[in-house]
Amino acid sequence: MSTLRSGDEPLDVDLAEGTPTGTTRVLSQPFGRPRSRHTVPGVPGGILRLAHVDVTVTDLDLAAAYYTEVLGMIVSGRDADSVYLKCWDEEDHHSLRLRYAPRVGFDLMAYKVQHEDDLADLENKVARYGLPVQRISRGEVMGQGESIRFGTPSGHIMELVHEVEKIGTSRGKTNPAVLDDGREPGPPALIAPPRMDHLLVTAEEVGEASQFYTDVLGFRITEQLLDGNGHQLGSWMERSHSPHDLAVVHGPNGGLHHFAFWLDDWDDVRDAADVLAYNGIQIDVGPTRHGVTRGSTIYFFDPLGTRNEVFTGGYRPDPDFPTITWTEDNIGRAVFYYEGELNDRFMKVHT
Amino acid sequence: MSTLRSGDEPLDVDLAEGTPTGTTRVLSQPFGRPRSRHTVPGVPGGILRLAHVDVTVTDLDLAAAYYTEVLGMIVSGRDADSVYLKCWDEEDHHSLRLRYAPRVGFDLMAYKVQHEDDLADLENKVARYGLPVQRISRGEVMGQGESIRFGTPSGHIMELVHEVEKIGTSRGKTNPAVLDDGREPGPPALIAPPRMDHLLVTAEEVGEASQFYTDVLGFRITEQLLDGNGHQLGSWMERSHSPHDLAVVHGPNGGLHHFAFWLDDWDDVRDAADVLAYNGIQIDVGPTRHGVTRGSTIYFFDPLGTRNEVFTGGYRPDPDFPTITWTEDNIGRAVFYYEGELNDRFMKVHT
Amino acid sequence: MSTLRSGDEPLDVDLAEGTPTGTTRVLSQPFGRPRSRHTVPGVPGGILRLAHVDVTVTDLDLAAAYYTEVLGMIVSGRDADSVYLKCWDEEDHHSLRLRYAPRVGFDLMAYKVQHEDDLADLENKVARYGLPVQRISRGEVMGQGESIRFGTPSGHIMELVHEVEKIGTSRGKTNPAVLDDGREPGPPALIAPPRMDHLLVTAEEVGEASQFYTDVLGFRITEQLLDGNGHQLGSWMERSHSPHDLAVVHGPNGGLHHFAFWLDDWDDVRDAADVLAYNGIQIDVGPTRHGVTRGSTIYFFDPLGTRNEVFTGGYRPDPDFPTITWTEDNIGRAVFYYEGELNDRFMKVHT
Amino acid sequence: MSTLRSGDEPLDVDLAEGTPTGTTRVLSQPFGRPRSRHTVPGVPGGILRLAHVDVTVTDLDLAAAYYTEVLGMIVSGRDADSVYLKCWDEEDHHSLRLRYAPRVGFDLMAYKVQHEDDLADLENKVARYGLPVQRISRGEVMGQGESIRFGTPSGHIMELVHEVEKIGTSRGKTNPAVLDDGREPGPPALIAPPRMDHLLVTAEEVGEASQFYTDVLGFRITEQLLDGNGHQLGSWMERSHSPHDLAVVHGPNGGLHHFAFWLDDWDDVRDAADVLAYNGIQIDVGPTRHGVTRGSTIYFFDPLGTRNEVFTGGYRPDPDFPTITWTEDNIGRAVFYYEGELNDRFMKVHT
Repeated sequence: MSTLRSGDEPLDVDLAEGTPTGTTRVLSQPFGRPRSRHTVPGVPGGILRLAHVDVTVTDLDLAAAYYTEVLGMIVSGRDADSVYLKCWDEEDHHSLRLRYAPRVGFDLMAYKVQHEDDLADLENKVARYGLPVQRISRGEVMGQGESIRFGTPSGHIMELVHEVEKIGTSRGKTNPAVLDDGREPGPPALIAPPRMDHLLVTAEEVGEASQFYTDVLGFRITEQLLDGNGHQLGSWMERSHSPHDLAVVHGPNGGLHHFAFWLDDWDDVRDAADVLAYNGIQIDVGPTRHGVTRGSTIYFFDPLGTRNEVFTGGYRPDPDFPTITWTEDNIGRAVFYYEGELNDRFMKVHT
Repeated sequence: MSTLRSGDEPLDVDLAEGTPTGTTRVLSQPFGRPRSRHTVPGVPGGILRLAHVDVTVTDLDLAAAYYTEVLGMIVSGRDADSVYLKCWDEEDHHSLRLRYAPRVGFDLMAYKVQHEDDLADLENKVARYGLPVQRISRGEVMGQGESIRFGTPSGHIMELVHEVEKIGTSRGKTNPAVLDDGREPGPPALIAPPRMDHLLVTAEEVGEASQFYTDVLGFRITEQLLDGNGHQLGSWMERSHSPHDLAVVHGPNGGLHHFAFWLDDWDDVRDAADVLAYNGIQIDVGPTRHGVTRGSTIYFFDPLGTRNEVFTGGYRPDPDFPTITWTEDNIGRAVFYYEGELNDRFMKVHT
Repeated sequence: MSTLRSGDEPLDVDLAEGTPTGTTRVLSQPFGRPRSRHTVPGVPGGILRLAHVDVTVTDLDLAAAYYTEVLGMIVSGRDADSVYLKCWDEEDHHSLRLRYAPRVGFDLMAYKVQHEDDLADLENKVARYGLPVQRISRGEVMGQGESIRFGTPSGHIMELVHEVEKIGTSRGKTNPAVLDDGREPGPPALIAPPRMDHLLVTAEEVGEASQFYTDVLGFRITEQLLDGNGHQLGSWMERSHSPHDLAVVHGPNGGLHHFAFWLDDWDDVRDAADVLAYNGIQIDVGPTRHGVTRGSTIYFFDPLGTRNEVFTGGYRPDPDFPTITWTEDNIGRAVFYYEGELNDRFMKVHT
Repeated sequence: MSTLRSGDEPLDVDLAEGTPTGTTRVLSQPFGRPRSRHTVPGVPGGILRLAHVDVTVTDLDLAAAYYTEVLGMIVSGRDADSVYLKCWDEEDHHSLRLRYAPRVGFDLMAYKVQHEDDLADLENKVARYGLPVQRISRGEVMGQGESIRFGTPSGHIMELVHEVEKIGTSRGKTNPAVLDDGREPGPPALIAPPRMDHLLVTAEEVGEASQFYTDVLGFRITEQLLDGNGHQLGSWMERSHSPHDLAVVHGPNGGLHHFAFWLDDWDDVRDAADVLAYNGIQIDVGPTRHGVTRGSTIYFFDPLGTRNEVFTGGYRPDPDFPTITWTEDNIGRAVFYYEGELNDRFMKVHT
């Protein structure tokens, strides 16, 4: 496990089984791909997508069991206090880190940038905004190279990273098999989402938080929820041409409302509900649809109390997508299109 | 109809009914949106997506009837020899132009670029590559501003455009209704795809054609089909973080194999097949799945003989997506994953 | 409209438009079909299925508008105080009667029997049980021949009928078109269920009510919900080889909890939810799944307050199907498999 | 394994793993159910449904591997020359028998009758028709009691049986789990149909064959295909209130065209196609839809060459369902609604 593996090689069995992986691995160079993938070397491309969500759990074994045996994620690494997991269609090392701590919490959200130069570029921009930025050395985080970290105006820790170990998927990159839900490896009756999709955080000042994410980090607002005075109560932002990679709603600074896994269609949403019910997992809301994003959804809680979502549908916004505005009197339809109203738990419970 | 309309206003009835629209309209400024949508002004962002496909038809009324009453597109303009159409979830003026001509053919493919400056930037790159570039003035093409045109190495006419009239959709941008298939306007029993997705052209030298699209225009290869000597027989390329915005397969220069509409899921694919059969439209292949792109599909012919596709599924590639390679001995599974083999008609018939 | 029409003839336009139909029509003889449809002439075959549900509404126009323009039913008859409706895939005259009355209520449930002789046979059985039976003459109910009516032990009026006018469907019986949701006629964006499926009534003594339906009328219990003492709290019964044609749960005698329309799959359930939300219809519960019947479902209210359901899935029980038993401690999962709990409104509100 | 098991007990592990089961088991009495399941004791109820299909295979291990590891059936018995299999939602002992023989062939089709008395009743009717009937003693066929067998006019062996060992399903009958595709037991990536649905046989004289099945055995014709002279080319017949339990099309006497498994919806059809392609199984036709029955379908071949089908959809015919007629000029749409034409292999290849 100490050498660089190409994406074409099958996933090591011990990775899939969650055996701890060493720390001496050589990180892959993401640009060791065919030349045609990168467009304009040297020009900042900015943030690509959500890379990983890092949360704390009070029972590491229970949490890992849930995320593998119910959600169907794959353990790609372990160290003294953490388990690292990825979805079956994700190439990168992990999209979820579970760290043991005496209380359930939210460590950070990490986004991946397109070019090496983007790190310095965005570091400058954040610093110019007036926020201190920390450099994290290669090797400090399993599976990834150098990164930067900073606290956002809404009280969250954000990490940006470029180099990530590409551990690939079990189907490889040559004449890959097409099975639509990754059912071939692992125990049956899993949700098995193909990938992590987005997260939603809370902030006391949604407008200020959104402005930081858009003006400094280049996020684009797809939809917003405005109160009667035109102030943002919610803001949905994207970088990956999907309805949202990051969203902010009104609430305490530093809060994590949920993180969400992508599913391929509405039938997968029903199958997910079946798996959740079969396993006795508490469903918060759904299956239902959002007015915002037009996506279909279920909210539910992991056994330690962090809210998860499965999500599908929506549109494909390019940077010229006109922002959609919801007014506060339509907040019910905006959030839960079928019910037309919010429930208290959804509004008040977060990590 | 001579003034700028915001996206929030409902689509004019005469637009929806296909009444010819004038030529004096003021083009919308795509950047008249909230500032947050554009990231780095002045820095070339490049091609966003397929803007429109322009084909010739030998019977304009028949073609227009088919694309509205079977496909469910909306007529957004007419002039002396052409009908312009859009899908229900598209904001821009049109995604398909049907032009009368004595024979069925392929006029051009137009792609939209992110920034005004992208036009000059890509014009320079194409010129440096050695191809003559033509400037098309604002007003020469209905619904769009200045554009550039050039012949590609594979013998196709390509247009790049930035300014496009945003005519919006019938649901508006404030507290929009969520109906998943645009069934509310127009006659029933339509396919009603939300948007145009991609096209596939033919080229004698696929590798050379692909290199032009990637090196000069910034497309990224998601998948390729290689013969035993490692030469490309097919190349699938994206700019919009979808499996393909443009694809090239081996065939005569200048050929159009098909253009494709996006559908939201596999049930919409079945519904499309029902509508096609009900209307007596000849299905070429499908419903089936592709190995390449993992998408689900039906191919069929419009009444004049141009091949259409409806397509859904696939993955969401970012620029760091590792290219997938198919070898010629797997060409059957690559193209039609269920059948495992190609049919003659699919290989030989194109526009 | 005064002559017998065969099922092959297209539905009269004025029927589809809800024009009142006369009362002089000659009823079709259901046995004017190919001889092979009836198995054992003269031998009682018993109840086939739910024929129609008769409810009262306080605003006939509003109710008719809802059941045609949201539900997508077809008006097949009108008289002084009532509107008669059918679903697009139903052959018989109507499956829902809306009658004006100063309060919302439940008139009766009518079931269709297989043979003419079944009426007398079941009349005798009901009379032997000790309940008075009333004969309703041909012509007293629009679209049907002679029938019998009686009050059940649970305080409901039940009607049994054999002769029903077969008005057919718009697709006819020769080389019929296949469109999966009846979208071709009528206004778009309808739920358009193919048929009525079942109803659920309330009774103070569920066990006694069930015993009447099974022992006297030949219903078969597919599932039951038992309290800790083994008494039935709910009973699901079938005659049509579906999970339930009639169900009884604990509640006041004479109550109607809901009647339900069949949908073909889970995607139709989502589409129904979209249509309901678009029209501002109050959803009670769902989309979700039942533990009992395994079906997927949405409950919602018509504008006058009668609960409707759309339902799909479940299994196909023959008479040898072993009864499934739910215990009271599992009542949450039994009724709403995903939520695992009942809500007050679902438990307490009925007609 | 020598004692009677109730349906509530979990399936024995050795059953699920295909361990040979003994022959001394006591057969369950199907009427040991709550009294309410049987309506009119002593009155012939007739045929309920397809019980099992018995075919011969030239490689028993290969066939068993395919039907368990690709189709996802469960081995419920083995003896010297045969393997017995059932689907996950079937209660009865088996729905498919694979018997070793030097050539691939069709042993018989068995249908289950509702009452013990039905056997004698139908034995008399068949004898009166002029066909010799054989009594098969309890114990001669694994998992079932006494049965009758006879050759049909179309040259097929038909078996009728009443007593069948109910081995139940892994979810039991008390507070059963709801998982929609039986994924919990066994290896992953299976088709896992809930049950066997129907079969289609060939006959030189379709009309004569159909008349035997309808007049003598009580099948009801749902759809028929007529040539220009009004002679039946195909006939679809039901007993279980589904579009067909048995169908006959023109071809050699004694032939088996295919037998079919039920799937719950169109998404399961796609998943089945994915599993088939992943396992390199040859698909004959589909995914597509039938005009006849309105069902969605895939045809494919087991490794020995017997055609299988997966099937879903269609309507729910009661005995008063008006027969649908297809004319020969519409044979393409009748059989393959999307393609509108038959292929040679489908027409000519059968067992």
